[in-house]
Amino acid sequence: MSDNTFGHLFRFTTWGESHGPAIGAVVDGVPPGLAVNEADIQQWLDKRRPGQSKYTTQRKEPDQVKILSGVFEGVTTGTPVSLLIENVDQRSRDYGDIKDKFRPAHADYTYHMKYGLRDYRGGGRSSARETALRVAAGGIARKVLGDGIEIRGGLVQMGPHVVDRDRCNWDETANNPFFCPDPVAAEEWATYLDGVRKDGSSVGAVIEVVASGVPVGWGAPVYGKLDADLAAAMMSINAVKGVEIGSGMASAALRGEDNADEMAMNNDGTVRFLSNHAGGVLGGISSGQDVVVRFAVKPTSSILKPRRTVTVDGQDTEIVTKGRHDPCVGIRGVPVGEAMMACVLADHMLRHRGQCG
Amino acid sequence: MSDNTFGHLFRFTTWGESHGPAIGAVVDGVPPGLAVNEADIQQWLDKRRPGQSKYTTQRKEPDQVKILSGVFEGVTTGTPVSLLIENVDQRSRDYGDIKDKFRPAHADYTYHMKYGLRDYRGGGRSSARETALRVAAGGIARKVLGDGIEIRGGLVQMGPHVVDRDRCNWDETANNPFFCPDPVAAEEWATYLDGVRKDGSSVGAVIEVVASGVPVGWGAPVYGKLDADLAAAMMSINAVKGVEIGSGMASAALRGEDNADEMAMNNDGTVRFLSNHAGGVLGGISSGQDVVVRFAVKPTSSILKPRRTVTVDGQDTEIVTKGRHDPCVGIRGVPVGEAMMACVLADHMLRHRGQCG
Amino acid sequence: MSDNTFGHLFRFTTWGESHGPAIGAVVDGVPPGLAVNEADIQQWLDKRRPGQSKYTTQRKEPDQVKILSGVFEGVTTGTPVSLLIENVDQRSRDYGDIKDKFRPAHADYTYHMKYGLRDYRGGGRSSARETALRVAAGGIARKVLGDGIEIRGGLVQMGPHVVDRDRCNWDETANNPFFCPDPVAAEEWATYLDGVRKDGSSVGAVIEVVASGVPVGWGAPVYGKLDADLAAAMMSINAVKGVEIGSGMASAALRGEDNADEMAMNNDGTVRFLSNHAGGVLGGISSGQDVVVRFAVKPTSSILKPRRTVTVDGQDTEIVTKGRHDPCVGIRGVPVGEAMMACVLADHMLRHRGQCG
Amino acid sequence: MSDNTFGHLFRFTTWGESHGPAIGAVVDGVPPGLAVNEADIQQWLDKRRPGQSKYTTQRKEPDQVKILSGVFEGVTTGTPVSLLIENVDQRSRDYGDIKDKFRPAHADYTYHMKYGLRDYRGGGRSSARETALRVAAGGIARKVLGDGIEIRGGLVQMGPHVVDRDRCNWDETANNPFFCPDPVAAEEWATYLDGVRKDGSSVGAVIEVVASGVPVGWGAPVYGKLDADLAAAMMSINAVKGVEIGSGMASAALRGEDNADEMAMNNDGTVRFLSNHAGGVLGGISSGQDVVVRFAVKPTSSILKPRRTVTVDGQDTEIVTKGRHDPCVGIRGVPVGEAMMACVLADHMLRHRGQCG
Repeated sequence: MSDNTFGHLFRFTTWGESHGPAIGAVVDGVPPGLAVNEADIQQWLDKRRPGQSKYTTQRKEPDQVKILSGVFEGVTTGTPVSLLIENVDQRSRDYGDIKDKFRPAHADYTYHMKYGLRDYRGGGRSSARETALRVAAGGIARKVLGDGIEIRGGLVQMGPHVVDRDRCNWDETANNPFFCPDPVAAEEWATYLDGVRKDGSSVGAVIEVVASGVPVGWGAPVYGKLDADLAAAMMSINAVKGVEIGSGMASAALRGEDNADEMAMNNDGTVRFLSNHAGGVLGGISSGQDVVVRFAVKPTSSILKPRRTVTVDGQDTEIVTKGRHDPCVGIRGVPVGEAMMACVLADHMLRHRGQCG
Repeated sequence: MSDNTFGHLFRFTTWGESHGPAIGAVVDGVPPGLAVNEADIQQWLDKRRPGQSKYTTQRKEPDQVKILSGVFEGVTTGTPVSLLIENVDQRSRDYGDIKDKFRPAHADYTYHMKYGLRDYRGGGRSSARETALRVAAGGIARKVLGDGIEIRGGLVQMGPHVVDRDRCNWDETANNPFFCPDPVAAEEWATYLDGVRKDGSSVGAVIEVVASGVPVGWGAPVYGKLDADLAAAMMSINAVKGVEIGSGMASAALRGEDNADEMAMNNDGTVRFLSNHAGGVLGGISSGQDVVVRFAVKPTSSILKPRRTVTVDGQDTEIVTKGRHDPCVGIRGVPVGEAMMACVLADHMLRHRGQCG
Repeated sequence: MSDNTFGHLFRFTTWGESHGPAIGAVVDGVPPGLAVNEADIQQWLDKRRPGQSKYTTQRKEPDQVKILSGVFEGVTTGTPVSLLIENVDQRSRDYGDIKDKFRPAHADYTYHMKYGLRDYRGGGRSSARETALRVAAGGIARKVLGDGIEIRGGLVQMGPHVVDRDRCNWDETANNPFFCPDPVAAEEWATYLDGVRKDGSSVGAVIEVVASGVPVGWGAPVYGKLDADLAAAMMSINAVKGVEIGSGMASAALRGEDNADEMAMNNDGTVRFLSNHAGGVLGGISSGQDVVVRFAVKPTSSILKPRRTVTVDGQDTEIVTKGRHDPCVGIRGVPVGEAMMACVLADHMLRHRGQCG
Repeated sequence: MSDNTFGHLFRFTTWGESHGPAIGAVVDGVPPGLAVNEADIQQWLDKRRPGQSKYTTQRKEPDQVKILSGVFEGVTTGTPVSLLIENVDQRSRDYGDIKDKFRPAHADYTYHMKYGLRDYRGGGRSSARETALRVAAGGIARKVLGDGIEIRGGLVQMGPHVVDRDRCNWDETANNPFFCPDPVAAEEWATYLDGVRKDGSSVGAVIEVVASGVPVGWGAPVYGKLDADLAAAMMSINAVKGVEIGSGMASAALRGEDNADEMAMNNDGTVRFLSNHAGGVLGGISSGQDVVVRFAVKPTSSILKPRRTVTVDGQDTEIVTKGRHDPCVGIRGVPVGEAMMACVLADHMLRHRGQCG
């Protein structure tokens, strides 16, 4: 049991605060003999890296990952892979004001009350910087899964604006700064988010992550459900307030005959489903269809609008959170969601193999 | 690591199929010295018990719980509490047809592909009957939490019909067969669900569970988030496809200034929040506000409408699932959701005490 | 994390006190498709059952095991196997005196101080009766391991009397009430133990358990060492005070050149070791040699000799523990040690398969 | 479940090979508010550091520990403490010969067979260098335990030479290079070990570790036994082949009346034991007496005597392990054993507090 570890057989433990010398992850349970190098992992970190457009924070975090152990002569050895990212642009002076005030919607108050103290420089462990380590661990998880499984994510809603599914194409996520699969929506969102940013405000988002090629049979019927682990994985990402599998919350409004994904035989003796309301998971076990997860990210809590709050000493006050913040943190949640999908699947792949051979 | 265990310090393991001689749970980590008897637990099971109205299955399952260990002279001893419920109304002949066909939206196909075999009598471990054990474990969890924490749940949506929040009152959930807090909606739903049932169809629902009195400080900043555990807890319940904390999926559409729950001092030196978009959890740690969780239950998969499917032998076919099924399984999900809330909170109470004293 | 669970992938949780209605175990992680029935498990329980000779307690515990779940049509389903043994000969009046006094060398005092109360009828969870469940779980573990792995145990020391290794033959363990592999020693021990018993005293023992056929490669280099798990497994058995692997404590007196088991090639290309000081485990990983474990069991604590102790109320007093006790509990430790060996190996078999395929 | 993690609530994960850039540990579950700095930890590492006398390896490993996270303004924050030690004297050329041959009594063969490959430079994860991280984690564990608990270890046997208990004094362990509590034995051992070293041989040892001040009540009756965890902790240390609690293996030869530690009341209403055969643990729970553990370390496997072995390619051969090796690795096992004692106790302290308040 650890509050800083995710997974069971494929598992990783993260450490580090945004304003210490470094952050890191220890990835354990990795099968031996997989070709892994730093560039394999770096490609995913680069996708998450801030400062790539005006829509994400202008902090400069090169986020160069180093492999300190567990890889020998280019392949994994079966022992823990230690990943380290140095913190290079800390600018702790930006955070001076928050030492004495609790920022609304942040973890400041709850953190302080739990531990009796807090590292006020950048949120300590509650900083979204921790998610870089999830992305790094996810890079190794993808190696465990192999090329047969493809994981893709994108923003399907920004603020109140939802993509048009008829226009969506996952390849489009590479063509705009929002990882949006709908190119028309992406253009509209650019204008919209500019307005939000200039207004000193922020806005939420919904991310969808889809895994293709997952074989039937991963997961378990009760507490080891694949979707229960996916729910925990996504809800553990900073600022996430809701998680859906397949038709998600909308399932409530469906009739049984509409929700039940019908099945039929293919000519080659395999089974196909005629729809995917289930999101690729039936009874907690993968069905062989695409595994489809969505999660909602709340608007960035650090905004230039003044908000009422209290001081550490118990006085009413107001706060404006200056600094270099993302107007929509959901954007950078895309590679994080993909990584968590990869980590959950890698864990269940090994768990299934352990029990069922 | 176990696929049939939930929780860490307060933890329970369930076993049993709906058509074996009995089902049971082993609840471990219970603090010593708590007054617990079978009636304490039975009251919650009675709330979940089927056959209490025409809107739930007419199977007769008295669900009488027995305590086999861990309680001595009326109080817990600190050792495992073994709970057992005998299966008395199995009628396995009702399930004959499903031996050879995979029921759409059920776990039949995935279960069969994972294990190479399945207990086709009532779904094996995938039967919703397992949730009786969650309710029983939740009865003990409530004892661990004590009287200061109140957990209440209700149906806030049935099919497309949503309650009117202005009419809602948790006390009303005791006055209708739907655990609906809105008495007007409850009446409308009665007519609506009658129609669904007579039509041989089924419908989904959204359940809301609220915990009051939770102190600030339970949970942890990263993978031990209180809301991550709540998400896993609720998603692990049969037929659940979405989980929300506080404003949930709707958070995506909010602006930062609207989402941030402002804080102010009370005269007695305590802190109050001016809203609760966060649902009582900030940065994974309880804030002292009500903890608010919602989850969507898909429509009952067993319906009288014929659906296309395949046989175990790989032939296209159709299936109609006879038997005595709930037209809206979401109704009986209410006590289950309450129980999972209690179990998650009890676990985090002990975890917080372990680390922080 | 559970104080009543053993193992990781193959894992079991036990519950129950010696004086409740029943005791039980939930065995989780069992691979599907294994042929298992109650007789398969009962044979091992019969080996441990008391009252089979005048050298073990005369309590009548038929210890009939029932399988309540996880086996369908004669094979395991991959879901939890619930095992239950009813308590039939409780005679709680025998234990009246110990309600108010702490028995020396028993867990009475520590148990009372930990929990603030204790089930004084037969020791509660500290009763050696719990070991019946280990034996039952071990029966399933043997099924997981298959016929290629043979596990045999025996008493190699009773009190100060050690077997002569030149006379030892594992087949002899079936021919005497002590599971002693040395038939000459067995005869001598019969006379010796008669004297101990008539004297109202008790004596300790050393048990050796050997597993043949374990393939090379199970275990892990650091905290997941096969021998670390074996040490925990054996030390967790009631009354055990020491555990050895291979040459054990005697390793300390060896020179490096004597301790190092030399290796050579067989004609068929396999490797053989020229000795087995390592006890079949090198660097925490099985070597393919016999896995050899020994553990020391202290003398039965319940004796007819008066001993000084204190009352629950804090008064000096004396105690004589009447009842029907084994003069050498180590004897019945043999099937328990075999079972724990089987459980550790089954767990590591699945763990190795999970990570390494 | 992780093969590289030790502990439950107080837990640490180690990573790194002796010939990579660094090794490290992530210590999780540390209570907040404890004053900890690098010097607190370094003092224990210095005790283990090689090259301090001619009786330990002449490798130069300054083993300077850095704290990378989890400590802010001099106190722990409740978040993971990341510890890093850089590798500075790797001399990988010393290990060239072992690339192609399996060293007897080392993990080379088993490691290779498990993973299909191995980091042959210094043993990979099987290097005793990993134990530096245990010592570092133990430094934090001591802070968790506080000043009321004192943990002391020493060598009580070297090769066949055992200390005289009448001459032993724990303060003497600081006065000789063997951590030997018997000053006369220490002098004799110096001559003895010189001979062993000049002979190109090595010898084993027995270490005793004693914890004073442990309160009654830590541990649990069945699988969470304090002594079961101690057994796993000590057996997981490199080269350990046996573990004893209290009278240990010698318990087998005792009579019940001699083994039972009698109890009596002190004038102040507390309980005292008249002996300590139990080693401070009764029924898996601490009794308030000194917790006494001993473990045997086999002789160093790397010796200058030629031994028969096989090559990776399956040829018979001989090997002489050059390099800079300890003639008695047991000496450096003393601070490692102390550290593991501290870690087990810290974990059980938090576990007890979690369940029992």
